[in-house]
Amino acid sequence: MATTSMYTASIPVFQHMLKNLSHVLAKGAAHAEARKVDPSALTTFRLFPDMLPLARQVLIACDAAKNGVARVSGVEAPKFEDQETTFEELKGRIQKTLDYLASVPASALDGTEDKEITFPVGPASRTMKAQAYLFTWVMPNFYFHTVTTYDILRHNGVELGKRDYLAGSQQ
Amino acid sequence: MATTSMYTASIPVFQHMLKNLSHVLAKGAAHAEARKVDPSALTTFRLFPDMLPLARQVLIACDAAKNGVARVSGVEAPKFEDQETTFEELKGRIQKTLDYLASVPASALDGTEDKEITFPVGPASRTMKAQAYLFTWVMPNFYFHTVTTYDILRHNGVELGKRDYLAGSQQ
Repeated sequence: MATTSMYTASIPVFQHMLKNLSHVLAKGAAHAEARKVDPSALTTFRLFPDMLPLARQVLIACDAAKNGVARVSGVEAPKFEDQETTFEELKGRIQKTLDYLASVPASALDGTEDKEITFPVGPASRTMKAQAYLFTWVMPNFYFHTVTTYDILRHNGVELGKRDYLAGSQQ
Repeated sequence: MATTSMYTASIPVFQHMLKNLSHVLAKGAAHAEARKVDPSALTTFRLFPDMLPLARQVLIACDAAKNGVARVSGVEAPKFEDQETTFEELKGRIQKTLDYLASVPASALDGTEDKEITFPVGPASRTMKAQAYLFTWVMPNFYFHTVTTYDILRHNGVELGKRDYLAGSQQ
């Protein structure tokens, strides 16, 4: 019988949604190629001048998953240089994030609910128990940047549907 | 010691994020009033012509939570008529959704991981076990419409930051 735990509530979810995100980015790249537009018109696009561009949305989604899991599990994560700008590079960053997530055993996450996690919030830091940290900080943050990536592409006319976001990697 | 379960992974998360969403909508309403613009310019705004307008995004976020919980828990949920269009009415819909969520006991959700859930997907239906349904369908769907609501307001210049989305109801 399946059970629900800090592991089942995090790693498989990130894996599923990051694979879908990679599929969404592939559709963005294909759109640019088909329309003969510079792909950077999409990857640098912001929904508002003081919002982050698409490429940064993807990097932050990846790091929300990677750093969230690293802090809770204690399994050290590689540090990346944030130099990805093209669709191909962003998909590579997702793959590197997936590689890290696959290296974290369930035993490192399960039973961590009450562990105190201190994490940076802007120039300050905040401390929460791991369960609240995962469910009310890491997950909402991860989804924020994943959905905003989708919304940027959709706003620019890329032919995407919610199914691409929910299950695109299974198509 | 805290444990993680189908209940802790769903109801408290929906409650937290819906309260933040209500706060985000209040900022949208305040923005319209301060700038003396018709609030419906915001509530009817779409990020692309074939995307849903803000008001529908809010209704679907509410129903993702309500119907997801109802299907898994078996606790009957009220049906709403989807007539809300103003910021005040949308905040009311969130409150009605919160009232339903508060009525669902942990015992109705915990241990449901393997329960088969059949749910509508467009004109068809799909069946998944409750754990996969919650984590790879209901939650991503809920976040999709919550974040898109935020993105629509942000795209229209409403002064919001990620903190409003993550923790706005606690301010």
